Amino acid sequence: MSDGPKSRKPNSLSSSINGETLTLTLTPPSSPLKMPRKPVLFKRALASIFAISATYLFFSAFISPLYRPRRDDSVTDATPVKLFMYDLPEKFTYGVIERYMKAREAAAATDRVMGLKEWAYPGHQHSAEWWLFKDLLRTDRFGSAIVRVLDPNEADLFYVPFFSSLSLVVNPIRQVPVSGGQMGYSDEEMQESLMEWLEDQVYWRRNNGWDHVFVCQDPNALYRVIDRVKNGVLLVSDFGRVRRDQASLVKDVILPYSHRINSFKGNVGVEKREVLLFFMGNRFRKAGGKIRDLLFHVLENEGDCVISHGTQSRDSRRAATHGMHTSKFCLHPAGDTPSACRLFDAIVSLCIPVIVSDYVELPFEDVIDYSKIAVFVDTNMAVRPGYLVKLLRGVSNERILGYQEELKKVQRYFEYDNPNGAVDEIWRQVAQKVPLTKLMINRDKRLVSRDLTEPDCACMCSNMTANINVQIIQ
Amino acid sequence: MSDGPKSRKPNSLSSSINGETLTLTLTPPSSPLKMPRKPVLFKRALASIFAISATYLFFSAFISPLYRPRRDDSVTDATPVKLFMYDLPEKFTYGVIERYMKAREAAAATDRVMGLKEWAYPGHQHSAEWWLFKDLLRTDRFGSAIVRVLDPNEADLFYVPFFSSLSLVVNPIRQVPVSGGQMGYSDEEMQESLMEWLEDQVYWRRNNGWDHVFVCQDPNALYRVIDRVKNGVLLVSDFGRVRRDQASLVKDVILPYSHRINSFKGNVGVEKREVLLFFMGNRFRKAGGKIRDLLFHVLENEGDCVISHGTQSRDSRRAATHGMHTSKFCLHPAGDTPSACRLFDAIVSLCIPVIVSDYVELPFEDVIDYSKIAVFVDTNMAVRPGYLVKLLRGVSNERILGYQEELKKVQRYFEYDNPNGAVDEIWRQVAQKVPLTKLMINRDKRLVSRDLTEPDCACMCSNMTANINVQIIQ
Repeated sequence: MSDGPKSRKPNSLSSSINGETLTLTLTPPSSPLKMPRKPVLFKRALASIFAISATYLFFSAFISPLYRPRRDDSVTDATPVKLFMYDLPEKFTYGVIERYMKAREAAAATDRVMGLKEWAYPGHQHSAEWWLFKDLLRTDRFGSAIVRVLDPNEADLFYVPFFSSLSLVVNPIRQVPVSGGQMGYSDEEMQESLMEWLEDQVYWRRNNGWDHVFVCQDPNALYRVIDRVKNGVLLVSDFGRVRRDQASLVKDVILPYSHRINSFKGNVGVEKREVLLFFMGNRFRKAGGKIRDLLFHVLENEGDCVISHGTQSRDSRRAATHGMHTSKFCLHPAGDTPSACRLFDAIVSLCIPVIVSDYVELPFEDVIDYSKIAVFVDTNMAVRPGYLVKLLRGVSNERILGYQEELKKVQRYFEYDNPNGAVDEIWRQVAQKVPLTKLMINRDKRLVSRDLTEPDCACMCSNMTANINVQIIQ
Repeated sequence: MSDGPKSRKPNSLSSSINGETLTLTLTPPSSPLKMPRKPVLFKRALASIFAISATYLFFSAFISPLYRPRRDDSVTDATPVKLFMYDLPEKFTYGVIERYMKAREAAAATDRVMGLKEWAYPGHQHSAEWWLFKDLLRTDRFGSAIVRVLDPNEADLFYVPFFSSLSLVVNPIRQVPVSGGQMGYSDEEMQESLMEWLEDQVYWRRNNGWDHVFVCQDPNALYRVIDRVKNGVLLVSDFGRVRRDQASLVKDVILPYSHRINSFKGNVGVEKREVLLFFMGNRFRKAGGKIRDLLFHVLENEGDCVISHGTQSRDSRRAATHGMHTSKFCLHPAGDTPSACRLFDAIVSLCIPVIVSDYVELPFEDVIDYSKIAVFVDTNMAVRPGYLVKLLRGVSNERILGYQEELKKVQRYFEYDNPNGAVDEIWRQVAQKVPLTKLMINRDKRLVSRDLTEPDCACMCSNMTANINVQIIQ
C-alpha cells in the first residue's frame, strides 16, 4: 500500500472532462452565496472550507467508490499487485549479455554506461526479458498493474530476472562449446546455478514457488530446470515444449515475440498491397513446422503470392519488411513450435495473418479477439491444392479494410517500445494470476495425501472446434 | 467504454454524502458567475473556482489514479465487473418457493409481500441462491466487485438466478412424486425447461455460455443439464459429483454452506470449552462419508469427546449449538461429498474444525489460509485408534487461542447476512473469473480442429501432499 502513490497516473482528469474546461461550483441550497461587505472574512473562510470539503465529498463519492478500497486481509482487490524483483547475481543478467558479446568478439564491455548499467542487449526475437527488466528498473513507473516493492515482505509476487532466452544463444550456433575455457559458456550450468541460488532464498522455499515469475520466452529456455520452476508463473511463447502439468493458459502468460520488422505507420488500404499472400522464412522446420514444405508446394506457383525461402540476414529482413508492408495477407505456418515471431511482424505490418498452426496459443487473448484480426485455417484444409488462394481471393476489399482497422487498434499490444504497449500488458496479465497463485499457496499448506489416479489438477476445458469457412463468413 | 459512466452513478452519491442535499452547478468558464455587486465579488468567485478546481485536481490526481482507469478495449482493469441478471420466468425463482411451500401445505402464498415480492425462502443449507438473488435486487448495492447492469449489451457476465438447490428439494423426501398433478413437481423438468428458455437467448448462444453464472450449490443441483451449462461459472459446494472437465477451482467458485448454528459472539477462550472434540450428525453416509462410522468407533468411548448420531430437528440443532459453542475442536468428516455445512457451523462457533475429508475444496481459499483455522488429518491416520485424540490433546491452550483468533478474523466470510460477508466475497470471486472467461470466449472463436488424444484443457496442478504432523508443529 505504501507504494501505491508512486504508481498514480495523472491522466484521469483530462479523460473524464474530455479536454473541455469546465468550472465547478458547489452551492449548498440553504446558504446562497450572500457576500455582504465587511464583517465576514471568517465566514468566507468557513465557506471556502465548506466548499472544498463538499467538493472532496462529492468526488470521493462519485469517483473513488467506483473502485473498491482494499479490505483487511483480502489481497486481490483493485490495488496494484506488488512485485519484488530479485537482485540476482550479475552473471544472470548483465553478465549474460557480456558473455554473448564476448563470444562474438564485439568490444561490448565498452558499451556499458557505468552508472546506468546500460548494456546493449542484442536485438533478437525473445527479448521480453530485457524489456521487463528495464521496465522494473525505471523510477518513473506509472499506471502499471504491477508496483515494484523493495521489501520482499510486502510482495505478492517475486520476479526472477534471469535472461534465460539470451543465455540459450550465448554460444554462436556454429561454435563448438568449449567446456571450462574463457569462451566456454554453458546455459545448462547457468540454469543449475540459478536454481542453487534460488533454493537458498527463503521466499522461494516459503510457498513452493507459486508466487515466483520466470521469463522463459524461447521455447527452450529453462528447459533443464522446468520441473523445478513449474509452479511459478512462466512467461512463455507457447506451450509447444512443455507438458500440461508444467505450463498452461490458466497459470502462465503468453508473450508476443519482439517484432523484427518496423511497424507500418501508414493508413489502412489495399491499393499499395498488391500481393495477395506473403511468406518469407525457413521452408524446413521440425515437428508441426513440416507443414511449411507442403505449403510451399501448393503456393509457390500462384501468381499473386510471394512465397520464398529466406534465412536471417539484414537483406532478408529488408525484403520481408517490404513484403509485409505491401501484401494483404501474411502466412503464419507453425515453426518448430506453434508460435513464431512472423505473426507479430505481420500484425504490426497491418498484413492480415493467415494462421496455419492448429495448436497455437496467442498473447493477451482475454482482450484481443484474434478472429477479428487474423484468418485461421486448419492444417488439413490449408495444404489442399488451391484451397487457400481461393479462400483469400474471395475476401472482399471491404472485409480486408475491416481486418486492417482492427489490426491498427491492437498494434500497440505488440510493441515493446511503446509506453502503452506490450510491457504494460504483460504485467497486467501477470497481475491477473495472483488470485489463483494465492489459492494454490494456501491450498498446498493444508492438502493431505490424496489417492489419485491422475495428477491433482484444476482445469478449464474447451470443446470448441471451429472452421475457417464459418469464420470468414461471420 | 461509453457505457462506463452509466453504471457507475446512481448508487454512489447518497452513500458518501450521507443524505445531505447539495446542489451542483456546472458553469463553463466563459460565463463566469456574474455577481453585479463589486469587482471583489468576481475576484472572490474566481478564488473559489480556483480553490475548488485545485481541490478537484488534487483529489483526482492523488486519489483516483491509484486505481487504473479503464483503457480502450481492455476490460479487465479495476472497474467493477458488469453483471446482467436474467429476468427469468417467475416459475424459476419465486415459483420454486411457492411450490416448495405448497408441497408442505404451508399457507405460504400469504407470506408474499406484494410490492417487494418478498417470499419466505425456507431456511436450508444451500440458500446462497436466495442471498445472491436478493443482493442483486437491492437498489443500494455499494462496494461490490459486481455492478448490476440492466442492459445486457453492457454486461461482462450473465447471472441465471434459477433456485436450483431449492428446486431439488421441493418434493418432501418421503413423498412419492406425483407426475403432472397439482402437487407434482419435477426438478428434472424444471432443469430442461430452464435450458429451453436459455437456449432461446441470444446472449447464451453468443459465447458458448462461458460468460454465464449459475448457482448450483447442492451437489446435485442442475445435475441433469450440467454438461450443457459446464462452460459457465458454476457456484458450487464442492466438486464431488462433477467431472474435471465440468467444474474446477480455476473456472468455478466454491460457496460456503449457510450455517445453521448461530455465530458465537463471545471472546476466544478455553475455559468454557471443556469438550475436546465434538461431532453430531449422521453416522452413516455414502462414498467418502463411510469414514464416519469408523471415526465413531475410535472416538465414541473417549471421555473428553462428544460424538453422537443425530438427524435434523430443532432439538438436535439446539444440542449442536451448545456442543459447538462449548468444545475446543469440531470434527468435520466427509459426507456424501467432501463438503458439509458442519464445517461452517464450526467456523462461526469458533470451534476449531478438524477436517477429515481428503478431497475437500474450500471457499475463498485465495484469501483464507485454512491451515491457520483448521486441523487437517488424512483419513488413514484419523481412523487409527488413539491417533486423533492424542494429537488434539497435545495442542497447547496457547495454540488453541491462536486458532480461535484466526477464526474470529474470518467469521464474516461465512455469514450470508453480514453486509460485509459471504455475498460480497462470492461476487469478488466471480469477478476474478472474468479474464479467463473472456480468454475462453475469444479463443473459441478462432480454434480450428485439433487432433488431440485428451480433452483440450488448461490446468493448474499441485504436487503437494502435506501431513498433519508437519502442519501442527508449524
